[in-house]
Amino acid sequence: MSSPTPATPTSPSMPVILTGDRPTGPLHLGHFVGSLRNRVAYQDSYRQFVMLADAQALTDNMDDIGKVHRNVVEVALDYLACGIDPARTTILIQSQIPELTELTFYYLNLVTVARLERNPTVKQEIILRGFERDIPAGFLTYPASQAADITAFKATVVPVGEDQIPMIEQCNEIVRRFNRTYSPDRDILLECKAIVPEVGRLPGIDGRAKMSKSLGNTINLGASADEIRAAVKQVYTDPLHLKVSDPGHLEGNVAFIYLDAFDQDKDGLAEMKAHYVRGGLGDSVVKKRLEGILQELLAPIRARREEFAKDRGQVLQILKEGTMKAREVAAQTTDEVKKALGLSYF
Amino acid sequence: MSSPTPATPTSPSMPVILTGDRPTGPLHLGHFVGSLRNRVAYQDSYRQFVMLADAQALTDNMDDIGKVHRNVVEVALDYLACGIDPARTTILIQSQIPELTELTFYYLNLVTVARLERNPTVKQEIILRGFERDIPAGFLTYPASQAADITAFKATVVPVGEDQIPMIEQCNEIVRRFNRTYSPDRDILLECKAIVPEVGRLPGIDGRAKMSKSLGNTINLGASADEIRAAVKQVYTDPLHLKVSDPGHLEGNVAFIYLDAFDQDKDGLAEMKAHYVRGGLGDSVVKKRLEGILQELLAPIRARREEFAKDRGQVLQILKEGTMKAREVAAQTTDEVKKALGLSYF
Repeated sequence: MSSPTPATPTSPSMPVILTGDRPTGPLHLGHFVGSLRNRVAYQDSYRQFVMLADAQALTDNMDDIGKVHRNVVEVALDYLACGIDPARTTILIQSQIPELTELTFYYLNLVTVARLERNPTVKQEIILRGFERDIPAGFLTYPASQAADITAFKATVVPVGEDQIPMIEQCNEIVRRFNRTYSPDRDILLECKAIVPEVGRLPGIDGRAKMSKSLGNTINLGASADEIRAAVKQVYTDPLHLKVSDPGHLEGNVAFIYLDAFDQDKDGLAEMKAHYVRGGLGDSVVKKRLEGILQELLAPIRARREEFAKDRGQVLQILKEGTMKAREVAAQTTDEVKKALGLSYF
Repeated sequence: MSSPTPATPTSPSMPVILTGDRPTGPLHLGHFVGSLRNRVAYQDSYRQFVMLADAQALTDNMDDIGKVHRNVVEVALDYLACGIDPARTTILIQSQIPELTELTFYYLNLVTVARLERNPTVKQEIILRGFERDIPAGFLTYPASQAADITAFKATVVPVGEDQIPMIEQCNEIVRRFNRTYSPDRDILLECKAIVPEVGRLPGIDGRAKMSKSLGNTINLGASADEIRAAVKQVYTDPLHLKVSDPGHLEGNVAFIYLDAFDQDKDGLAEMKAHYVRGGLGDSVVKKRLEGILQELLAPIRARREEFAKDRGQVLQILKEGTMKAREVAAQTTDEVKKALGLSYF
């Protein structure tokens, strides 16, 4: 058995945060609210890794691999357009870091099949995708893959949706089992903490709970001015609010939910809400305000996106550099893990 | 999507064979009969890869990783002692080829959990190990890992025991599914054929069906002359053959099963068997013949083993060179697989 090497903190001063997306479609306002704008802020206080999770996306997209390949650069463009700064955030492509599959491979020995099947997130997603007993093995085992991603970069903070919290718990179980058994003198792997964004999920323009490409109810970050206008026209409001003079309802009213998320003029918004509720305010006025705000929000993002899109070679170069940097960190962790497991000979 | 590169046959003239062992203990006469002596012969007609499957051994030895680490060099010594020639056979350490875990990762998307659970080999081994529902995920998924090993080296021939045939079938299912879906114009992955050695499993010296370190009924390849003598004394014969004059039985008589496996003088052996059956031949005479044959067989193996063991650095060098050579082949296959899956960007 080789002796463990001393710990090499990847960044002594800043905690490490890992976030990312499955590149299966362009990002939209839901992503912006739920994660992208937070990531821009995280850059100041965290050492941030943002992962394009193409390998994970394949676990349930083996019948449409082209979609995953195509969207890697598209999502990277969304990142850059929103202000994720490659000088301060390491953007990486998951599949280009083989060490992540090595860690996954060994973590699979630290988790039982029964435990994976009990994972509430996995359970729910299996139902969602209609897999039943025909679950691809790669899908059942993806908590081990997520644990590999998180631990490879020694992330201690992972922003997730409420529904993903069980994944973080499972990751920490693997971490504890590994450290206790194979690295009792010092923690090679680090436990992580889930942070759930304050602003929750944005509903789709049709009023359904989730904005999702597959539901066709999104406003994409790269949407043109016309597309934004058309989308706002379709935004679900209050079906009981037939005449302008009718009192309106705010619950489930997507126009106001979006205004809550994006309108900086909170006083003006409060006034508008009061007027809407007592009656006498038409949806068109509300939507006009919303459209103005969204046009203003998305115009610079779209412009930056178009600018970056002109030179895809440069985007690929950014991704390559980020991936190489991330790979060094992952390789270091994997080396420590393999040494601890006695898988070191030369 | 990147276009596929032209096929690069790893060796145009010779078919590729993959064999190997889980390094969990020194090899013994059972391995010699079932595989090692065949491998020495395969060197003439195959491009042979022999894998020290340390990563696979961990799937059910996470509670004793030291055993796996220790036995890698021990098993390599057994290989070299038996005449496996590193100039003609590529000896590799599984865990040192990260590409094998990459292939495993992607193959897991091509096989369902239900299919893995139906695999008769896996089913039987789960019972054997008493895992029940607490199966480590890495154990359930090891058919995907085996498929990775076989396909990485483009092996078309895999010597296995009867009980391992379902693993080969599962590998070929993965191969066909991959080629059909992701590489319809040319077969990136190759189907393989199981070959089952003519001489089956050697029983243990105690008469139990399997010679196995954990049962303590082996004769190791590195056994000393005294150990061989002591072991032969213990060899199970015919419990009804109490007096020399009694007629003896051959069925289940380990002394004669071993003689069948190792005695080159088939006529002399036939005569001895006839004498034993009609009565008048003592076990001691039979065992004396057996001991002579085993001492003769194992003396040069032990001598070579001791010679190689003097310079473990040289053995590690052989393993390093073999592993590097094997890694090149595995990396080429993995590159083709990832390109076909659209996981190629730079």
